[in-house]
Amino acid sequence: MFESANISQMTSQAYAIGVDFGTASARTLLLDLRSGEELALCELAYPHGVIDDMLPETGERLPLDWALHDPDDYRYVLEAGIQAVLSEQPGTASHVVGIGLDATSCTVLPVTADGTPLCEVPVWRRRPHAWPKLWKHHAAQYVANRLNEVAAERRETFMARYGGRISSEWYFPKLIEIWLEDRAVYDASAAFIEVTDWVVWYLSGRERRSACPAAYKALWSEADGIPGAGFFEAAYPGFSEPAAKLGTDFFPLGTSAGPIRPELASKLGLPGTVAVAVGNVDSFVSFPGAGAEGAGTYVMVVGTSICDLVVHRREITLAGITGVAKDGIVPGLYGYEAGQPAVGDMLGWFAGVLSGPGDNGPDANGAGSSGADRLPALELAAAALAPAQTGLLALDWWNGNRSVLADADLSGVVAGLTLSTTAVDIYRALLESIAFGNKAVLDNFRSGGFELNEVVACGGIAEKSPLLMQMLADVSGLTVKVPASSQVPARGSALFGAVAAGPGTGGFGSIEEAANALRPPTGSAFTPDPQATATYDLVYRIWKDLHDTLGRAYPDWLHGLKRLKLLAAPGPGQAATTKEVI
Amino acid sequence: MFESANISQMTSQAYAIGVDFGTASARTLLLDLRSGEELALCELAYPHGVIDDMLPETGERLPLDWALHDPDDYRYVLEAGIQAVLSEQPGTASHVVGIGLDATSCTVLPVTADGTPLCEVPVWRRRPHAWPKLWKHHAAQYVANRLNEVAAERRETFMARYGGRISSEWYFPKLIEIWLEDRAVYDASAAFIEVTDWVVWYLSGRERRSACPAAYKALWSEADGIPGAGFFEAAYPGFSEPAAKLGTDFFPLGTSAGPIRPELASKLGLPGTVAVAVGNVDSFVSFPGAGAEGAGTYVMVVGTSICDLVVHRREITLAGITGVAKDGIVPGLYGYEAGQPAVGDMLGWFAGVLSGPGDNGPDANGAGSSGADRLPALELAAAALAPAQTGLLALDWWNGNRSVLADADLSGVVAGLTLSTTAVDIYRALLESIAFGNKAVLDNFRSGGFELNEVVACGGIAEKSPLLMQMLADVSGLTVKVPASSQVPARGSALFGAVAAGPGTGGFGSIEEAANALRPPTGSAFTPDPQATATYDLVYRIWKDLHDTLGRAYPDWLHGLKRLKLLAAPGPGQAATTKEVI
Repeated sequence: MFESANISQMTSQAYAIGVDFGTASARTLLLDLRSGEELALCELAYPHGVIDDMLPETGERLPLDWALHDPDDYRYVLEAGIQAVLSEQPGTASHVVGIGLDATSCTVLPVTADGTPLCEVPVWRRRPHAWPKLWKHHAAQYVANRLNEVAAERRETFMARYGGRISSEWYFPKLIEIWLEDRAVYDASAAFIEVTDWVVWYLSGRERRSACPAAYKALWSEADGIPGAGFFEAAYPGFSEPAAKLGTDFFPLGTSAGPIRPELASKLGLPGTVAVAVGNVDSFVSFPGAGAEGAGTYVMVVGTSICDLVVHRREITLAGITGVAKDGIVPGLYGYEAGQPAVGDMLGWFAGVLSGPGDNGPDANGAGSSGADRLPALELAAAALAPAQTGLLALDWWNGNRSVLADADLSGVVAGLTLSTTAVDIYRALLESIAFGNKAVLDNFRSGGFELNEVVACGGIAEKSPLLMQMLADVSGLTVKVPASSQVPARGSALFGAVAAGPGTGGFGSIEEAANALRPPTGSAFTPDPQATATYDLVYRIWKDLHDTLGRAYPDWLHGLKRLKLLAAPGPGQAATTKEVI
Repeated sequence: MFESANISQMTSQAYAIGVDFGTASARTLLLDLRSGEELALCELAYPHGVIDDMLPETGERLPLDWALHDPDDYRYVLEAGIQAVLSEQPGTASHVVGIGLDATSCTVLPVTADGTPLCEVPVWRRRPHAWPKLWKHHAAQYVANRLNEVAAERRETFMARYGGRISSEWYFPKLIEIWLEDRAVYDASAAFIEVTDWVVWYLSGRERRSACPAAYKALWSEADGIPGAGFFEAAYPGFSEPAAKLGTDFFPLGTSAGPIRPELASKLGLPGTVAVAVGNVDSFVSFPGAGAEGAGTYVMVVGTSICDLVVHRREITLAGITGVAKDGIVPGLYGYEAGQPAVGDMLGWFAGVLSGPGDNGPDANGAGSSGADRLPALELAAAALAPAQTGLLALDWWNGNRSVLADADLSGVVAGLTLSTTAVDIYRALLESIAFGNKAVLDNFRSGGFELNEVVACGGIAEKSPLLMQMLADVSGLTVKVPASSQVPARGSALFGAVAAGPGTGGFGSIEEAANALRPPTGSAFTPDPQATATYDLVYRIWKDLHDTLGRAYPDWLHGLKRLKLLAAPGPGQAATTKEVI
């Protein structure tokens, strides 16, 4: 067979395309499967961005904690991205063997039986619940609270796989939110589906849901399926068919959903044989994308948020993680996920706040506003300060806490402010808060028996903030390596595309084989400075005390502020929610 | 006598001048003693401002927590201010009968035997300790800590007059700081004197120290004098003559230090008979200036910081106040002082921070920087939000806490931050933190048995921020009145000038008589909105829990951040201090 021959003797070309659907944009990568070279990359912003202010169709103001996408943006960035990378490398299109993709999760949308997004059906377009809900749509927190309460009462054993907490970001809170708040939309939906699975459906013409998001976000496991109706009925009497919109068949990572649809193939100039890999979760593809294969490597995907990934041969029950699934990251191993939900988002927020009173709206405060151009100057000035020099401490809970507290209703804190505190001090404190939050996650894994000896960091912020990378090293005491790749997630997705294509076509037989053959070189390595580590240890003790006081002992204080805020200015349609929150 | 005649029948003119020496500027007021009309006001900034960055003479960087003034600025604003108000009202100068003045306290300077500021003697000019130290110079906190420790050990009864805590802002911590850190400067000083007393000396040619700052800031009482050498020697062996630089004679409020010096009278075009009142503390003069006379009225002077003043016929022992002195505010009553040390300062700080990474220095962050022009827009936008709508909570400890915790090493906290928090939200939370801090002070007085039924607020921020005034009313549940005066403190000082001049010259026989005759009308009254009060009550519960946790149960956390900051970047000459702080 070709594959056993010496690679240098091969003359046949083979390429794969990876598409990484993020929060604000998507990245499309063309990968050379012989050399591992990243031949072309195209990043395209979603034309409609994150919809958290008003519904485009009606101008209706969205309630607090809502975050939507426009599904047509997915088609646009998919097709325009593929066309862009292929036209940048003429002659490659006919040798593309596979496409893999990943998306933020749980980003999920109601669709009709033929896969049409419900919000594109005119009669439903004016209903907010008909639109795709982004991972960071947190308005279903009250559902998550109720599910957690009932799961605890019933001592549901499936909870052990999720660190003991169901997140408001996941599948069932978002589905039940629709069931509760807009039953007509619920009834009109044939399915409620992850964006990653929806794009695979669009590409291949086949609904082939991935086992990975099902396991991490929809409470499914290969052994036990999803929790029985008894659990859901106990929480929400009448919600008796939990699988109705989810389905029951899930396909393993690396398998093919089938070849690309002929119409799309000809539109994009691709061979009709191109294999479409089943979908994946944006963070998880980074594990093989960064060249990691086994236990001991802690992979951090550092972007809008941070996703932490480790694998282990055993299933370990551990509170404070987001989830664990067999085969969830690498087949044959248990894949563990943890994370911090506001990283790039939080830094962009701060830059936006510096725009001052002119920008008095949630939208104007994002990194997309004029604030983003301040980030390089803030980064440069913050790097000139020493550990502990700001006198500040921050809890990075701007978007709640995912690990180790799993509490979306917590909010951010800055302590230590004085009249001589500068904007740069605060920016540095926010960076440090990310590193302290990461130490809490690492320590939690260690307490569960994980031996972690290196950190591999990838994602946009890993490239953009060497200062944060050095802090992660100094605070954790571990070396942090950043792979030399323009796009680790899209690279990982391309590898899954190559695995879906299989060895017979120039692809690979398994994801480990692909990761091993095409591991990217280390771009930069950040080693801990022992003096900085010693100083940060002292700051961390105070940080941990404040963290445990506000996050564990008295979470009601920050929860109370959020409740009072909802009462003070409820958004449209928020009244019902507010009642349940209080 | 003239005074018993009907005022409308009086034809003789009589005027008094009041000068209010603040942190960044001084205000000079010309008051008509017949009509109570404020005829002319002149505000002049100190040319050298607050010196907290580097020593002008040498460019030497000042350590953390230092804050100095240039004494020549006092002469300049005094003379130019008086000339300005007199030239604005031609024909008044010859009818001026008295001058009163007040200054921030404890702002204090070392002088030679003839009253020359030590820093103006060339051989001492390069020594930081030879310069006037502003009230908010907090670098003597370690001395205050030691004095508090020893006073507690020795169960010193004088501590009951000071809410149980000596502040780092006061006389003896600042004096002993010099004794410890620059003995040569200490030995070269003939006296160490409050600025208010120094200006009286400059005006009248006589050193006539006022009983008021002596009682509130130098641990003196009429009955007991200052604490004995035994107390000081127990804390600092060798510091055996506590009265050496302070003196032992103090003159009551409203008395005259004597007539103006002939040279100054002719320079300023004033009669040689003008009486100079003994000096007063900037906040205290506002009590009669605002027209308050007796118990039940809570006077707040709202400017750079807040000073709260109440009087009572009995001496009440109460923790959490700054001080109590018989005759300290109004003769015959006990005068109680409390306060919040960062108000206008904190708001200006925030506006400065919004200037972003371009302004990476403590000086550039003050309200004097480009930030100040943002305040009106912030105020306007913050007023459009409802109570609790920001979801934020702040502890206003940017400059430590004076009441009710008396801890200068605490620092500010903002909690409840999310990705949708705006600059305006934060600004509003800072305003609310001032109102919550004030409620803590009010509740403390009430717990001591004070019946407070109205709040009179004056000072620059009382004029500039109707939003803060409404919050003070809503949070406290009390009506807040703002007198219609362009300058309550300078008005109060002018009244003391008129009392020093006495009834025989067109002045008054007592400060109560003056306050009563010339009470300014109420400019605006803010009545509490019951719904806002109810909402704030809920927020305040959380605020109080956080306040007590970080301020009482675990002050070590915020103290620790400050210690680590000092260690991370000690200023010049800071090493020794740091050693003692740690």
